[in-house]
Amino acid sequence: MKIKYELLHREKNSMGRYGSLQTNHGTFETPMFMPVGTRATVKMLTPEELYDCHAGIILANTYHCWLRPGENLIAKAGGLHHFMNYRGPILTDSGGFQVFSLAKPKDISEEGVKFKSHIDGSNLFLTPEKSIEIQNKLDSDIAMSFDECPPYPVTHEYMKKSVERTLRWAKRGKAVHQNENQSLFGIVQGGEFEDLRKWSAEETVKLGFDGYSIGGTSVGEDKETMMKMIDYATKYLPEDKVRYLMGVGEPMDIIEGVIRGVDIFDCVLPTRIARHGNAFTRDGKINLKNLKFREDFTPLEQDCDCYTCKYYTKAYIRHLITCDETLGGRLLSIHNIRFLIRLTEELRKAIQEDRLLEYRDQFKQRYEAKEKKH
Amino acid sequence: MKIKYELLHREKNSMGRYGSLQTNHGTFETPMFMPVGTRATVKMLTPEELYDCHAGIILANTYHCWLRPGENLIAKAGGLHHFMNYRGPILTDSGGFQVFSLAKPKDISEEGVKFKSHIDGSNLFLTPEKSIEIQNKLDSDIAMSFDECPPYPVTHEYMKKSVERTLRWAKRGKAVHQNENQSLFGIVQGGEFEDLRKWSAEETVKLGFDGYSIGGTSVGEDKETMMKMIDYATKYLPEDKVRYLMGVGEPMDIIEGVIRGVDIFDCVLPTRIARHGNAFTRDGKINLKNLKFREDFTPLEQDCDCYTCKYYTKAYIRHLITCDETLGGRLLSIHNIRFLIRLTEELRKAIQEDRLLEYRDQFKQRYEAKEKKH
Repeated sequence: MKIKYELLHREKNSMGRYGSLQTNHGTFETPMFMPVGTRATVKMLTPEELYDCHAGIILANTYHCWLRPGENLIAKAGGLHHFMNYRGPILTDSGGFQVFSLAKPKDISEEGVKFKSHIDGSNLFLTPEKSIEIQNKLDSDIAMSFDECPPYPVTHEYMKKSVERTLRWAKRGKAVHQNENQSLFGIVQGGEFEDLRKWSAEETVKLGFDGYSIGGTSVGEDKETMMKMIDYATKYLPEDKVRYLMGVGEPMDIIEGVIRGVDIFDCVLPTRIARHGNAFTRDGKINLKNLKFREDFTPLEQDCDCYTCKYYTKAYIRHLITCDETLGGRLLSIHNIRFLIRLTEELRKAIQEDRLLEYRDQFKQRYEAKEKKH
Repeated sequence: MKIKYELLHREKNSMGRYGSLQTNHGTFETPMFMPVGTRATVKMLTPEELYDCHAGIILANTYHCWLRPGENLIAKAGGLHHFMNYRGPILTDSGGFQVFSLAKPKDISEEGVKFKSHIDGSNLFLTPEKSIEIQNKLDSDIAMSFDECPPYPVTHEYMKKSVERTLRWAKRGKAVHQNENQSLFGIVQGGEFEDLRKWSAEETVKLGFDGYSIGGTSVGEDKETMMKMIDYATKYLPEDKVRYLMGVGEPMDIIEGVIRGVDIFDCVLPTRIARHGNAFTRDGKINLKNLKFREDFTPLEQDCDCYTCKYYTKAYIRHLITCDETLGGRLLSIHNIRFLIRLTEELRKAIQEDRLLEYRDQFKQRYEAKEKKH
């Protein structure tokens, strides 16, 4: 079965959407934040901890799983769900972003991308067909089309050629996509150029996918430009398909993305900053290494319902982080993931009650006021 | 309330004892293996994971907690239980072993030990009184007397003087021990010398403690000598008090210790080897990095009831370990701790059924046969 998106409420004062997405591994509501399980594991956490965070769906990286342990091994295990013991929905990316960012040097042609493994330097070749073939074997619920990820900024001419190639690649990938239980998303590129985003969106929609991603953001552009990129893309996407903004996890960016009609977000941010001792709070990010938390016997957030806030104090987490005890990063990862998912829960409610912009203003005032103070 | 040990069954063919120990944080049966929470955390694990392993009691290191975050901070948090969110019994060691092994250079006098912190090189001074004072503040259920830990081997003359000092230190520590809700153990030293072990045991018992530890093993002696050391100590310890063999966690050593009348064991072994990719099995230790596990989609042990064996395959754990994903060490730590606790559960049953030596022979045959093969 393919995924089914249902639009349940359209917010009156913005493009914000409240909906639900049905998959073969369960249904979840949107907007939703998706934790990243790079190598078939969300760093430090078990599936149960992710269910407890109310994660609707997680992401696994095709590039990393391809290199280690290999898609054939995962297929032998019965696919990603069986391999990593995750019973909820899983989305795989195309590997494109990693190939363009991690693997160097690379040689991009119409056929695909030749590059060297970031692990052992061996020669690898990823094509639109190969990406889909790997994702078919990984057996995720949702696969991504292989796209070209151009740097930022580039000229309009460069970006136009890149969008053309991404469209040809999307077509090639779709042609070989076989898995009837796996949905396939197209990716809208086009950088900061409205005409190219519009064209990319319209042409990708014409090819016909089960959902649409917005790519090419968080690549060095300023926030204003990022928001324009999202505006230019969602405007031209169909209402009846789910929309996924790739690689975005800053709380304010999630809120602004939702206002612009995005349904799903993913980012390594909550787990990465956790490993460095940072926690999201309504009053901005805090670093637990800070001496002021030494004797702070209160939870990270008083009103948070996560496991970490239920049982642990800032003083204890600070102790763990200071001593390089991995439980520290684990407790912070749980809190940070739950923080972003709770944020999307509140956004859903705000959409249903048509007060999304008001919610944004209130959240922003508190989050950024203290953020400056820290 | 002080701990209460109840001897429930004495095995017919050995010194093996089945009993129960009542503490202010719950009652557990003995023999029992005690996981080590060096810095107020059993590496990588939450309290819930330890409860699921059926851990009866855990150990926290006084030396490490004294240095970071400090006993006063932990006291302010309400003691170790509150600080680390552990609701079961906790035992603290005296700090002696760490001072004698980790901290160098050191200057041992009758008063105590002057040494340099292994973290920042600052000058520290640990005395029998100071150790008890710290443990009082940590508020563990069971505290240890501060003892001298001589190297191995030493002469009879050297060991005699050391035992004399340990006895004087035990007396001094007992004199300042104030916490009515904390039990205090004496430690039997004496190396491999039967007369000194006997004398140390008898004199320590005369001082009157709530339980007795056997120290000075696992310091470089061979297994046969270690077993003699245990024999020489337990022989002279009262039947109505619990006995704790410090720093021993190899499965065969636990079994041989139980045969010699030991009730409690602790060791960092299960968590340490886990972080290096090793798992205990009935057929000996295995290293998950081994290529032969690459496509092994079976659990670490078919009949193990731990979380890891319930949900994960060797192939997945191998993948995690190979990629340095901390979930790998975490899953192996859970299995290894549960393995040793299950071993003590089986030993309890074997004692009750008076077939302890038979159990030992069967376990040993299987464990060592494959151990040689690996």
